This record gives sequence, C-alpha cells and structure tokens, in this order.
Amino acid sequence: MNKITNLRCISCSHEYKTGELEYTCPYCGHRQGTLEFLYDYNSVRNELTTEQLSKKDFDIWRYLPLLPIEKLVLSKFPPPLKAGGTPLYQVKGFPIGGLWVKDDGGNPTGSYKDRATSLVIIKAQEKDARAITCASTGNAASSLAGFAAAAGLDTYIFVPAKAPKAKIAQLLVYGTHVFAIKGSYDMAYDLALKAADRFGWYNRSAAINPYLVEGKKTGAFEVSEQLDWKVPDYVLVSVGDGSIISGLCKGFFELVKIGIVDRTPTIIGVQAEKADPIAQAFEHYKGDEVVIRDQEAQTMADSISVGSPRDIVKAVKYVHKNKGFYIRVSDEEILKAIKDLAQRTGVFSEPAGAASYAGFLKLLDAGGFSKDDRIVVFATGNGLKDIQCIQDITGKFYKITPQLEEIERILANSKL
Amino acid sequence: MNKITNLRCISCSHEYKTGELEYTCPYCGHRQGTLEFLYDYNSVRNELTTEQLSKKDFDIWRYLPLLPIEKLVLSKFPPPLKAGGTPLYQVKGFPIGGLWVKDDGGNPTGSYKDRATSLVIIKAQEKDARAITCASTGNAASSLAGFAAAAGLDTYIFVPAKAPKAKIAQLLVYGTHVFAIKGSYDMAYDLALKAADRFGWYNRSAAINPYLVEGKKTGAFEVSEQLDWKVPDYVLVSVGDGSIISGLCKGFFELVKIGIVDRTPTIIGVQAEKADPIAQAFEHYKGDEVVIRDQEAQTMADSISVGSPRDIVKAVKYVHKNKGFYIRVSDEEILKAIKDLAQRTGVFSEPAGAASYAGFLKLLDAGGFSKDDRIVVFATGNGLKDIQCIQDITGKFYKITPQLEEIERILANSKL
Repeated sequence: MNKITNLRCISCSHEYKTGELEYTCPYCGHRQGTLEFLYDYNSVRNELTTEQLSKKDFDIWRYLPLLPIEKLVLSKFPPPLKAGGTPLYQVKGFPIGGLWVKDDGGNPTGSYKDRATSLVIIKAQEKDARAITCASTGNAASSLAGFAAAAGLDTYIFVPAKAPKAKIAQLLVYGTHVFAIKGSYDMAYDLALKAADRFGWYNRSAAINPYLVEGKKTGAFEVSEQLDWKVPDYVLVSVGDGSIISGLCKGFFELVKIGIVDRTPTIIGVQAEKADPIAQAFEHYKGDEVVIRDQEAQTMADSISVGSPRDIVKAVKYVHKNKGFYIRVSDEEILKAIKDLAQRTGVFSEPAGAASYAGFLKLLDAGGFSKDDRIVVFATGNGLKDIQCIQDITGKFYKITPQLEEIERILANSKL
Repeated sequence: MNKITNLRCISCSHEYKTGELEYTCPYCGHRQGTLEFLYDYNSVRNELTTEQLSKKDFDIWRYLPLLPIEKLVLSKFPPPLKAGGTPLYQVKGFPIGGLWVKDDGGNPTGSYKDRATSLVIIKAQEKDARAITCASTGNAASSLAGFAAAAGLDTYIFVPAKAPKAKIAQLLVYGTHVFAIKGSYDMAYDLALKAADRFGWYNRSAAINPYLVEGKKTGAFEVSEQLDWKVPDYVLVSVGDGSIISGLCKGFFELVKIGIVDRTPTIIGVQAEKADPIAQAFEHYKGDEVVIRDQEAQTMADSISVGSPRDIVKAVKYVHKNKGFYIRVSDEEILKAIKDLAQRTGVFSEPAGAASYAGFLKLLDAGGFSKDDRIVVFATGNGLKDIQCIQDITGKFYKITPQLEEIERILANSKL
C-alpha cells in the first residue's frame, strides 16, 4: 500500500516523506506551512474503479485506495463508528437543472467532522498516542470525543466557553476533559497547540494535521458517486477554518486525476459577512503568497465563527486552482435558510450547515445560475446541535389545555 | 402487488379488507382493536430473497415485498428522506458471545420513528390527505413534522408542553402547527384523536394507525441482515406505547415465515420503573384478553413516559407468542446507561434510547446471560434531543482563561 508518495508544503512546495514530519513545514510555520498528501495516482487508478466500488459498504472506507492509511491494523480497522455514507437529497422547485443537499448531520456525532476524525483515530492508534487533543468551535470537538471514547483513547479538548450547549453536552457525556476557554475559538486553538507540545498529546486541530483534509475529501467522492459520476456544475459549502472546502477541492481534483470523471465542479465557499478572512484573502490573491489578515469574527453560526482561519492557504490556493470563488451571507440570511431548508427538504441543519444553502439562495436570486445548472449544497451539521439560535424565527406554537374547543378557537382565529 | 391478504383485529381476530377500515376494529375499539397486516407469505418468499437483497440500497425500502405499499406511485416514491439503513455497532468487553447496538439516532430526524413515518407519508399521499396529525411524546412528532414538510403536507401536532426543548424546536423549524398540551402525553393523545375526527386530518398517532408497526418492523429485518442472518439470542428495546416492540416481534416472526431464518430472538421489553403498564399487563396475561390498567407515568425518559400505552395489546400478545419478557429499570440506571453507552461505543442516546442498554446491564449483572449469548440492543433516539437530563451525570469541565499555566495547574491537581 505504498501509494502515498510524499507530503508537500502548500506554500514552499518542499516535499517530505510521510513519518518525517508530524504537522507542518518547519520552513513555513503553522499557518503557511500546512501539508498535503501526494499519491501515486496511476497506481490508485487501478485500485479504485467504479466497478470495484459497487461491491462495497457505503461509508468513507470504500475509497480506501485514496486515503492515507499505510498499514492496516486489521484488528483496529475500521474505527468503531461509521462516518460518511450520508444521504444526498434532491430538492425540487427551483428553475435550475437540479439541486441536491448532502445531509451530513446524520453522521455518528452529527457533523461532517466525523469523516476527518475517523482517519485521525487510526493514526493516533498507529502512533500509540496516550491522548488526543484539539481545539474546536464545537463539532470537531464532539466528533473527536465520541470516536476517541469508542476507541478507548483519552481526550483533552479546548472550546470557546460560549459554544452551543449541545456540543458541550456531547463532550461531557463522552467523558472528555473539557477546557472551556473564556475567549474566542482562535485563542482556544493557540492554547491547544501549546498544550499538545507541552504534554505530548496528538493534535487533531484543524489544518495542522494533514490527515483531516484527507478525511474531508470523502464528501466529494460520495456526492460524485451518488450522482452516478455526473459531476455537478457547482458545489457550495460554508467556510470557517477552510478545511472542509480544501478537502472537497482536493477530492474533486483527485477524481479527475484517477480518470473517474473528466472535470471538477466550480466550488463556491460561503462565509459569514463578519467572519470572512478567507474570502478577503482570496480576493487579494494574485497567485503567489497568500496574505493572511486575521479578524475578530462575529456570527451566530458558531462553526464558522473563525477570525484566524488555519487552513486559509489551502482554502485560497485550491479554490483559485479550481476557478471557484467565495461569497458572503448575513446572519439573517443564514437563519432564513435554516427554516427554508428544513421546510422544503426536512433537513434541519445548524447555522453553519445552512449557510451554504443561504449562499445558494442568494446567488440564485442574483441570477447567478442558469436553467441547466446542477448544484450541490453541503449541510455539514445537525440542527439539534444548536436550537437556541432558531428561537426567534419559528412560530405557530399554541400552549393549550386538552380541550377540543381550544383548537377550534385557534383554527378559527388564525384561519389555518 | 396483492401480497397483502387482510387486516386482522389483534383482539377478536376479525379480518377486514385493506381500505375497508382506516384505523381500528369497530367491535373492539381503539385500545383493544388495533389491526395487523396479514401477507401472503408464500408469494413474498419468492420476492424477498437474500440474493435479491444484496443488490439494493440500504434503507427500509429494500424490504418492499414485506411492506404494505399496494400501489407504488413512482413519482412520489421513495419519500423525500431516507429512513433506516442505520449502523449496527459491535460492543466489546462483555463476557458474552457478542453485543451489538443498533444506532437509530442517525435517522433524518434523529429517531427510530422515521421508519414508521416513511410509510405514513406514502399512505397520506395515496389518500390525498389535506393534513396529518399526531400526538407524541416528541419523537414521532418531529419525525412527522420533518417528513411531512419535505413532502409538502400540512401537520397539526400534539405534544405534552414539557417535552424536551430540542424536540419542540424541531417541530417549529419544520413549520408545523404545534399544540403544546398542559398535561400528559396521554391527554395529548386523546385530544389528537378527537381533533382528527373533527377536522378530517389523517392520524399518525401510535397504535391506531396499522402502518406504523409495519414501518417499525424494519429494524428487525436490518439487524438480521447486518448479522448475516445469524439471528441473535436476545433483543432488548425500550417500551412506551408498545409500537416499536410490536414491530420488532412482527418483523422477526415474518422472517421465519418467509424462511430466511429459522428462529426468532427472545425479545426483552424494557420499561421505566414508574411507567410500566405494559410490563404489568404482560405479567398478568393468561393468553386471553389483555387487561389494561393505566397509570400516571413518571420517568425522565420522556419517550417512554406513557401511562396509557396504545399498542399494549400487541405488545403483550406478540411478546407472549415470542416467549419474551419485560423488565424494569430506574431513572438512575437509565442515566448511568447513557453515559456508559456513550463512553464505550460513541453512541450518545436519549434516555429512552439508552433504557434498553440499561436493561442489558441489569440482566447481565443478575447473571441473565450465558457466555455464548449474542445480544442486540436498540438505541432508538439521538442524545442531542435531550441534553437537559444529563447535566448532573457528567464532569471534567474546566472554565479557564487561555493560559498554559491554568492547564498545568488543573492537571497537577486532578492527577489527570
């Protein structure tokens, strides 16, 4: 299984052997020096064919030839929870060629992050790690907590203290050691870095661990397969740290490289208006170094409330290579999108998950799509993870005594 | 597709043609007169074989020959959300032949109820129903709300006002008309019955609608198939209204009838100590009429907090026929089970979902299983649906400023 050729720095392109480095390029540092796995795509091409795929279970491991697992410890494979294999729902009623929602809220811990965690757990076991850490706005945290618990690994997790209650409840029920930081996600991230270094914990934080993007690319594989390898025209996904969009880009690139499809969709990253450092960096990008300007992020979509995005270099370079682009949506547009998506499709998504759909609605409104366009939006997290945020946008709630007359009165008054 | 022969009253055994009756046997009434679908199992036997199954998607529709869909309106089939096809996880570390958890929290709206709702939506469309109603402790409600929204159907839903917040949030985001009853689930149920009658709404409430048990039996099919048709020795499931356990029993009976397996597992129903009317009726059952003694239910496991169970007759008769039995667990045992299940498997389950695992632990402790026994427990609802209840059982939460010294101090003090 020596299909992986090297790890390459996304900024200086220096290549390293796997095992030579754990996290990032020493020349370019944590932010600029994130690494990408390179494969021998000619050898993968023979192992991963549509015919072979048809015989396998529908989860991320069906794409094993394109995943960075070097030595399979069969007793520990696959990891105890099933990531991926989530449904792709067609949504009707729009004047375009087709709209589909990829509902990743049904993953074991309720978010897209489970795809990446699956890989990290295997690597942690390979390394005989004593404990794993990560900083997270919430979803990566609960994902790591759940998978690590099932694998019998200890976890030390850093989240902003204001993370949604349900995400913190997940951490606690899984028995993780939770450090709730009085401050932003960005502060939590820096602290996790230091703590990992100081205490020797394996680090699952976004971007610096190159395995994460590898897990996150499986969404691109699944969507392509679920559409019978007829690549969509556009893919929309919300963007916080930039890891998921980087994974999706890489996934689509790789399908072209192994010849399963002949083109990639145009990738559209959706950021919150007041948490848009990647959109800004992208718009200033000229093809050389990615200039990073951090901000103080402000959005109710906690999962993308990131002012110092860690995978910004990949998220800019990959989308540039893809000829994709970034757009911004307001919190108000996200809230409306949660409700519209739920009522149109039955998919109840957390704010960050619905931001991609908000972006779709906004572009559609602006005439950004043509009548034949086939479009996929990723719903990356379960709505049950944050019910606080939707308190104000819903209605039709009648608290009554159990009397038929009460219902008659309400129906008459409201002309239901 | 005339594989359905008749509908039969569970109490008087009178048979009716499908279409002749909507809900229950007019001679025996709502409680005693629930109906069961009868099939021509010889004809099903040819249509549903393990070989044909292997080619189909993993959701409930792979078992279509054993589901009561008479005329497939292809434009409306399958329903917009994917129910079933949930993972079955093996749990290690117990001195028995094997333990597996069926994690139904990953269904579209987060519970087992989605299996039943899928069928109801198809029937409602077949009948051109203007609106659907149901009474529910919460999960059937959110399930109906989500599926109906996606199918473009109106809903009027009755829940106890004290239902967990997340379940009510689901109803509201899906745009249903929510009647929150100042009173118990049992009162909500009676009111929904009257309202359905008065306003002509199609009724998805438990037990009276015979399609529900048909959807709920698919869990038995899936577990059997996931264990390569090697039927387990025991199956444990929590019991409120009694519909899920009735569905599981019927599902296992039917697999024997069509000859795919040669025996059924022993079914163990798990009730909360202070909400145990079905366990009581079962223990007094002599093989003739099921004597119903309603109670005032008291348990924090809201989904099984049912004092007037509506599917009690089937739940008693089917388990009796199966030679299964009922046990009781305390709220304290349920809480411990939520945590133990989460930390051992990564499956975070709501209280009613973990009650089955609590029952397993209790019986194991009492020496109820032998070293070769293969056991399946059903986790019927996602833990994100009720995070309030676990506030007191979790720990290891440190609120800190973002300083490495704070972590050092905590680790030193707590000897982590």
